[in-house]
Amino acid sequence: METSKSDVVEVVPEDYSYVFNPYREPVACVQPGQRVLIHTEDAFESRINTADDLPSQALATAKFLNPQTGPIFVEGAEPGDALAVRMESIEPKREYAVSCYVPYFGGLTSTPLTRTLQEALPEKVYVWNLHENNGSRYLVNEEIGVRLPWEPFVGTIAVAPDLEAISALSPGPFGGNMDVPDVRPGNTVYLPVWNEGALFYTGDCHARQGQGELCGVALEITSKVTVSFEVIKGGGIEWPRIESEEKLMTVGSARPMEDAARIAYAELIGWIEDEHGFSRLDAYQLLTQAGGLYVGNMVDTTYSLVASIDKRYLTRG
Amino acid sequence: METSKSDVVEVVPEDYSYVFNPYREPVACVQPGQRVLIHTEDAFESRINTADDLPSQALATAKFLNPQTGPIFVEGAEPGDALAVRMESIEPKREYAVSCYVPYFGGLTSTPLTRTLQEALPEKVYVWNLHENNGSRYLVNEEIGVRLPWEPFVGTIAVAPDLEAISALSPGPFGGNMDVPDVRPGNTVYLPVWNEGALFYTGDCHARQGQGELCGVALEITSKVTVSFEVIKGGGIEWPRIESEEKLMTVGSARPMEDAARIAYAELIGWIEDEHGFSRLDAYQLLTQAGGLYVGNMVDTTYSLVASIDKRYLTRG
Amino acid sequence: METSKSDVVEVVPEDYSYVFNPYREPVACVQPGQRVLIHTEDAFESRINTADDLPSQALATAKFLNPQTGPIFVEGAEPGDALAVRMESIEPKREYAVSCYVPYFGGLTSTPLTRTLQEALPEKVYVWNLHENNGSRYLVNEEIGVRLPWEPFVGTIAVAPDLEAISALSPGPFGGNMDVPDVRPGNTVYLPVWNEGALFYTGDCHARQGQGELCGVALEITSKVTVSFEVIKGGGIEWPRIESEEKLMTVGSARPMEDAARIAYAELIGWIEDEHGFSRLDAYQLLTQAGGLYVGNMVDTTYSLVASIDKRYLTRG
Amino acid sequence: METSKSDVVEVVPEDYSYVFNPYREPVACVQPGQRVLIHTEDAFESRINTADDLPSQALATAKFLNPQTGPIFVEGAEPGDALAVRMESIEPKREYAVSCYVPYFGGLTSTPLTRTLQEALPEKVYVWNLHENNGSRYLVNEEIGVRLPWEPFVGTIAVAPDLEAISALSPGPFGGNMDVPDVRPGNTVYLPVWNEGALFYTGDCHARQGQGELCGVALEITSKVTVSFEVIKGGGIEWPRIESEEKLMTVGSARPMEDAARIAYAELIGWIEDEHGFSRLDAYQLLTQAGGLYVGNMVDTTYSLVASIDKRYLTRG
Repeated sequence: METSKSDVVEVVPEDYSYVFNPYREPVACVQPGQRVLIHTEDAFESRINTADDLPSQALATAKFLNPQTGPIFVEGAEPGDALAVRMESIEPKREYAVSCYVPYFGGLTSTPLTRTLQEALPEKVYVWNLHENNGSRYLVNEEIGVRLPWEPFVGTIAVAPDLEAISALSPGPFGGNMDVPDVRPGNTVYLPVWNEGALFYTGDCHARQGQGELCGVALEITSKVTVSFEVIKGGGIEWPRIESEEKLMTVGSARPMEDAARIAYAELIGWIEDEHGFSRLDAYQLLTQAGGLYVGNMVDTTYSLVASIDKRYLTRG
Repeated sequence: METSKSDVVEVVPEDYSYVFNPYREPVACVQPGQRVLIHTEDAFESRINTADDLPSQALATAKFLNPQTGPIFVEGAEPGDALAVRMESIEPKREYAVSCYVPYFGGLTSTPLTRTLQEALPEKVYVWNLHENNGSRYLVNEEIGVRLPWEPFVGTIAVAPDLEAISALSPGPFGGNMDVPDVRPGNTVYLPVWNEGALFYTGDCHARQGQGELCGVALEITSKVTVSFEVIKGGGIEWPRIESEEKLMTVGSARPMEDAARIAYAELIGWIEDEHGFSRLDAYQLLTQAGGLYVGNMVDTTYSLVASIDKRYLTRG
Repeated sequence: METSKSDVVEVVPEDYSYVFNPYREPVACVQPGQRVLIHTEDAFESRINTADDLPSQALATAKFLNPQTGPIFVEGAEPGDALAVRMESIEPKREYAVSCYVPYFGGLTSTPLTRTLQEALPEKVYVWNLHENNGSRYLVNEEIGVRLPWEPFVGTIAVAPDLEAISALSPGPFGGNMDVPDVRPGNTVYLPVWNEGALFYTGDCHARQGQGELCGVALEITSKVTVSFEVIKGGGIEWPRIESEEKLMTVGSARPMEDAARIAYAELIGWIEDEHGFSRLDAYQLLTQAGGLYVGNMVDTTYSLVASIDKRYLTRG
Repeated sequence: METSKSDVVEVVPEDYSYVFNPYREPVACVQPGQRVLIHTEDAFESRINTADDLPSQALATAKFLNPQTGPIFVEGAEPGDALAVRMESIEPKREYAVSCYVPYFGGLTSTPLTRTLQEALPEKVYVWNLHENNGSRYLVNEEIGVRLPWEPFVGTIAVAPDLEAISALSPGPFGGNMDVPDVRPGNTVYLPVWNEGALFYTGDCHARQGQGELCGVALEITSKVTVSFEVIKGGGIEWPRIESEEKLMTVGSARPMEDAARIAYAELIGWIEDEHGFSRLDAYQLLTQAGGLYVGNMVDTTYSLVASIDKRYLTRG
């Protein structure tokens, strides 16, 4: 279940978890600072592969979706800490990505949560082939006839919640299925820790995705994700944070969408207040004039919004 | 009320409108293609100017807020057309911008629409002084000690609705108080036309603003806005559109926020379908993988979200 | 336009208003205490009458819907007062009521505000015939084969807003298209006053309706509504109130629906606090344990919820 | 853990569950048809008992709230069945009920999901004493000086979800913390079954509650609840249903509140369609004119709405 090399722990799961679960046995145990190479399935567990597949049929045998690799036990992580996940790289395991229209799932259809009596939209699979040219990768869908840059990220990244076991389709305070493109190589994701060892799960890599993940299915890929962990003792955060070279970001997930916006910005105010010496009211003012706020997903069980501030605006004097 | 020069029509209002009103007499009448220089008040009609002002007191005499210059009658515009507004420039009329906390108004407080029994947040005024250095402008608030770039845009831009007269504090299909930073010089805004002459209103310029306009009050300025109009016969759009050099954008305004997101993306699908030869389903797919979606305002009577697509992704072959 | 009898003012409109409009000339002028008999059209202006009508076709010529009779000028009403409307009776002007499915309108379909890409639901007209038996009236739809009691009420009842002219399809602080079954004979409706004479509008009578008005179209009738007005000087209310023999009720209209719920209950707390000697916190407690909260409409431009308290629970000692 | 008598199984838990959990060992195993007397704690695990208690302090030691008795294994229940729970009686275990204001919890305050920067409302405990007079019980709060009838019901009633373990504070398809007053003696609650034995949980009895449970805390009591179970093979329902002598009811739980309304009515249409011979469109029409829709809770992790139809309106001919 785990192959250790001198410098990299490789995690090849024998089976997957469909919940972020504090009760499941760890599939690997790693040290902070170690590089960890994690194999991940796509959201459909590779059941959809060609434009001829019919999603409702291909998924009929799937009791659950969005398989997760995990939990990975991070030595030293304890309840009340924060887990920093340094995103190093995402390598595809196949030469194509898939998207599709699944009946009653997506942002411009009624769903089991936003019910109507209308017929479902037509089903359809889009295969996007991965090409490489002069060292830059891109994706091509022949039918539409467009190409888009390879900008991979991790759709689902979580720690096990406190007491609960939550569907891997859900985003939340624990991270989860946020579908936020800034969970990408080069950035660091911070997650709250409620369990010994943090109990980290990940999966659902995307070759790329627009903001909102409009139809509910990004460019889904199987992949190898390399990360390393750091444990921030007493880091005490309540919602996921992301840090890039230029920005501080917070992710709020809730319904209605304005509640996700409020969470994201309130958490970002707290971050700036606690670690950058702004008063709460001054932070509120700064974000009013210089904050960013985009939609990660508008399709999952709760919506995920990302609030941000450029670090250069935090320098005073 | 109107001073014509050979090449610019200057609109200096004698009084303001607090509604987007199809019944009000035009303050100016212009030809498509003419440059029009419009003087605008700030959202508080210049009642708040120093850090010592108390918003609730300063605004106690203001029966209505967000004064608009207009309507401007555009020759040749008829119901069913679209009005293209080329945004040329925004020049400040004073050396500072103001923001403030107004009781029970903003994104992180309860409001008259999202009611609670809690006390209001403290009131406070922030004055941001406009500086220029080597040809680039920026804004400084001495108390917080940060500086931000001058990135002016028009907060409120509208045509008169059909039959209704709607508060200038509201965004909607008619445009209005969208508070969307992409309504800025260099871009073109498209609005539906329901009345003879379109009946254009504008006001509420901002020296800059973060996405969401978090506390509800951006960096408010008095200004001179230069635009020109074009009438697109039978342009038949239903919600505002924005075009920049790189992007097509649509604005949806609604509550809850997910409804604004749905409108924005559904309108963008329609645009791509009608004018760029994509099928509806292919457009849905393209926006899933490459669309943008940010929050313009999360504080007004309805929330405004901006969906976008880079034009280079519309090229096929 | 107005025929006065000794004791009843009869208002037979020559044409209708499709907005709650402070600028329209009054169609009648009445004294407080006078009985006023108002003729009202149905929401479709009698364009739909048989099961063979196709709503989209029948309504194709209707630029606007929900015609209102008004404004009626009530002598003595001034801004800051409240207008009490005693609902006396509703008499049908024809022997049937109609309901129907209008494309993209209703509670279990996507709409122009909650957009999807799905096809519309099938159109269909339901005619419900009015029968009388031993002095009790009921409605029968032969196709479904059920009968329902005659429980008529007024779907739309409003005063003109302050400055704005708002579509007659909208509910709001001014009352409007609330579609709340408690606006019925025997009850008193209280509305804020923003204009001289209050400028009262009404229309859209329903033979009956379930809570929520699920498909968006109740049992629509043309009718004669008899009311009388009272002016409560300085009555200063902000949202509509309803009083029955047993209950105090407040109506909040907003989106999302929880905002309507918050408004309705916050207004009811204010009422109990101001007029029944409860502290704010005690009123909050009492309504927690004994309040009522039902959905009037889940289909209009904003949703209307009704909070209530039985008067017997306001007696202390 | 379980004391069997000839005709009643008494379930006295040794400890409680704070999640609806498919992995927890059953505390009792019962036959369909047996009467089961279940001891339940109150939502605060009896930590709040007097007007002098300070909720934030009393609850500081409580890692989790809303303790549940369960799971109870019902013989013969299998995935795909429905579990019918006949509610027989609720007997109080103490002579008083408590309600209180918990910081940042309730319907008229900001919360961790609907965040603001405002201060919390004041804390306060209300003790309501249970009196009996001529065989009828009522509750009196001496401070407010009002009395209210004893109308007890079960706030939380659930089966274990499929795969997930969900907080006992949450309502959902599994039932849970719906806080719906119609879960009361005399009525039958139907729940979906996802696990062998159904795995039934209950707790959180209320001496009474208004619609919406406005402040978030009803009249909380410890109690003995008597129920019996029936297994409906292949009963295949997706959301909870309630049946009284007069009505069919369905409960939808979601955010925003309109999504809960849509679920409740869509499920009720399905029920009428499947078991009462109405076409889908006719059921939509019937509920438009005769349905009921009230708010159970507007305070929990999702809002619960109850749609209903009088059974007499289902009789045709």
